[in-house]
Amino acid sequence: MSTIIALETTDVRFPTSKSLDGSDAMNTDPDYSAAYVRIRTDAVDGLTGHGFTFTIGRGNDVQAAAIEALADRLVGRNAEEVLADMGATWRGFVYDSPLRWLGPEKGVMHMAIGAVVNALWDLKAKRAGQPLWQLLAGMSPEEIVSLVDFRYLTDALTPDDALAILKRAQPGRSEREAALLDSGYPAYTTTPGWLGYDDAKLTRLSREAVAAGFTQIKLKVGNDPDEDNRRLRLAREAVGPDIRIAVDANQRWDVGQAIEWINGLAEFDLAWVEEPTSPDDVLGHAAIARGIAPVPVATGEHMSNRVMFKQFLQADALQVMQIDSARVAGINENIAALLLAAKFGVRVCPHAGGVGLCEAVQHLSMFDYVAVSGQLDGRMIEYVDHLHEHFVTPVRIENGNYVTPTAPGAGTEMLPDSIDAYTFRPDGIA
Amino acid sequence: MSTIIALETTDVRFPTSKSLDGSDAMNTDPDYSAAYVRIRTDAVDGLTGHGFTFTIGRGNDVQAAAIEALADRLVGRNAEEVLADMGATWRGFVYDSPLRWLGPEKGVMHMAIGAVVNALWDLKAKRAGQPLWQLLAGMSPEEIVSLVDFRYLTDALTPDDALAILKRAQPGRSEREAALLDSGYPAYTTTPGWLGYDDAKLTRLSREAVAAGFTQIKLKVGNDPDEDNRRLRLAREAVGPDIRIAVDANQRWDVGQAIEWINGLAEFDLAWVEEPTSPDDVLGHAAIARGIAPVPVATGEHMSNRVMFKQFLQADALQVMQIDSARVAGINENIAALLLAAKFGVRVCPHAGGVGLCEAVQHLSMFDYVAVSGQLDGRMIEYVDHLHEHFVTPVRIENGNYVTPTAPGAGTEMLPDSIDAYTFRPDGIA
Repeated sequence: MSTIIALETTDVRFPTSKSLDGSDAMNTDPDYSAAYVRIRTDAVDGLTGHGFTFTIGRGNDVQAAAIEALADRLVGRNAEEVLADMGATWRGFVYDSPLRWLGPEKGVMHMAIGAVVNALWDLKAKRAGQPLWQLLAGMSPEEIVSLVDFRYLTDALTPDDALAILKRAQPGRSEREAALLDSGYPAYTTTPGWLGYDDAKLTRLSREAVAAGFTQIKLKVGNDPDEDNRRLRLAREAVGPDIRIAVDANQRWDVGQAIEWINGLAEFDLAWVEEPTSPDDVLGHAAIARGIAPVPVATGEHMSNRVMFKQFLQADALQVMQIDSARVAGINENIAALLLAAKFGVRVCPHAGGVGLCEAVQHLSMFDYVAVSGQLDGRMIEYVDHLHEHFVTPVRIENGNYVTPTAPGAGTEMLPDSIDAYTFRPDGIA
Repeated sequence: MSTIIALETTDVRFPTSKSLDGSDAMNTDPDYSAAYVRIRTDAVDGLTGHGFTFTIGRGNDVQAAAIEALADRLVGRNAEEVLADMGATWRGFVYDSPLRWLGPEKGVMHMAIGAVVNALWDLKAKRAGQPLWQLLAGMSPEEIVSLVDFRYLTDALTPDDALAILKRAQPGRSEREAALLDSGYPAYTTTPGWLGYDDAKLTRLSREAVAAGFTQIKLKVGNDPDEDNRRLRLAREAVGPDIRIAVDANQRWDVGQAIEWINGLAEFDLAWVEEPTSPDDVLGHAAIARGIAPVPVATGEHMSNRVMFKQFLQADALQVMQIDSARVAGINENIAALLLAAKFGVRVCPHAGGVGLCEAVQHLSMFDYVAVSGQLDGRMIEYVDHLHEHFVTPVRIENGNYVTPTAPGAGTEMLPDSIDAYTFRPDGIA
């Protein structure tokens, strides 16, 4: 028996704006940052749980303050109890009415809950001696259902529906787990496509992506249609006809504008168009999807909660669902998203990049493959080659695939030296 | 010429949970609170701008920290420039990409922007020597359009649409202004209906509401159908057949459950059902509206931004729109909501109560009546008799109507003694 004795929060910021890594039509000069949390217990194993919210710089202190505000919900509690029933633990945070008022279930406070929930999952997986994907994939359908909050979902997905989906995937779990450990999970790369990169860098990185075994790349678009046309032509020339090219507008357009803009890029045979407009606009995305078919609409990285995922699926407003490990209230809510996608037969291609998002989200895709959808039908995890060196178990890519992690935990632990070196100090004094 | 020299934030909390004022099915023991902001300039007039986000207790410190994070966007700037083009000022906050990432346009950071924007409007109205409603209603249609951000709205409302709506309302502005100053604006009351009140208090307060001239009351529901039935019967007996009774579930139900529950209360001839489910669920509300017709669906107090209001109107998911003065990004975004409602021909009955929400939101309804919809067709502002004594210009109700305010400002200024007496001190030391 052990007690949770501390929830430590750190404001970590990397000066990525200097190189324009991560620059897009909405976010022109981000400093990739993490509002980072470490959970400690008094157990003799010395294991700690790590989680974070990803932000792009200013305001990371507010996000850290929100995580800090959750400390009194957790510190002093029995660690085994908290970790044994993660469904109840999740509801304990999300149903807390004063904290819920600050969203509800969206924005800074909801993401703070996600960071803490993910840190608890990291601790739980370390205690189990398993990578998180394997811990989840080893649970019974009933245990998995108990992790999910079905409030506001039952018009689209009931606990019985979820149980049926999970039971359908039970045969073949071990074969798929073996396949994962053998070959990894498909990836695509956004590395070549940032808006701030010049033509030479775009061409060089596109060629390198193909050489590295990727079968899809992604370009940022949305500042200027002629410029997008030119850059897509360069990229297509660089990668040849057999590599898929997706584009990402980062919420830059209104509905009518999105349809017109994308139809103007029809010749490039786009793999998908990502975030064409506001992530809140279910009906807008549905109109865009109808207006640009057969080009698929992809979105999800800024979708605030399971209620939004539900509606996008109900309205046929996305054809590619892009979960993010650090936007919703953690692993539990992302499991709800995976179950919804399975119910509606939509493929999941997670958003990653940022700080540690690749390390974190791979566990969800791998769990999905083994125990939920059982499918790889066009599914891929985004890959960007930023900042992996700051993590204890950085992702590895081989032949365009994520190498399946085997180290215990959720992948979310940052190196102590990196945390210390990049802790934000407003007064500039180290 | 003057400079903004300070943005001061205070965590103000009232111990309302002791009396169960404000108790409902989701929020059982709120401590009504305000993350409060004062903006000071070095002008010789000594005028200050006041705004706030309303919360229900714990986490109010996080909300205050978010407001504080906006100080460096404002302090040191020329006050006249900031106040002269409030559309540009609004976009300066909302388009700021690192802050936007923390929503986008929702939750703690978006509400923080709302508090600061509203404080600037308070200052602008004080400098003009006018109550805010009158300042807004005196602007030209073009000036009003310039306050609104149409990003993500143009599939439902264009600047030209807005201009046409405002020009249509120009004739009769002065007659309606005179009528407002003469008779005030209709109100309804939620005072009798909190879930934590016993039967005697419910009956007594319902009778008092009728005696005070209100023609509609509202009851909280959603914990237990039999109990709701019993309390509605008591209220109906107390108020007689001619007073409308609305109910408010505070997001308590799933879609199917909402339809069943409300249809079980059909005999009470409900004026509307408010917040039947998640405020994010456009499609769910649309299904509920179809399932309980002709009972109208009312919602909006937790709707995070103009994109959500747009969709609820497009989907016929609400029949009564309930704007809130402190949930979206301030006056500007609420003007977008009013214009959307006018475009779709839906009546607006604002949410109020809390801390200072009545004082603030009345200005929007009165502006709407004079310069936007030009209508009173079933429009009413919620009234709850809590905490008005802490404001410099508390609302007054006569014959069931809000008395139209004439004091300069936005109504958002709290008394210095109240701020001081209720400043939250975690260590308990005054």
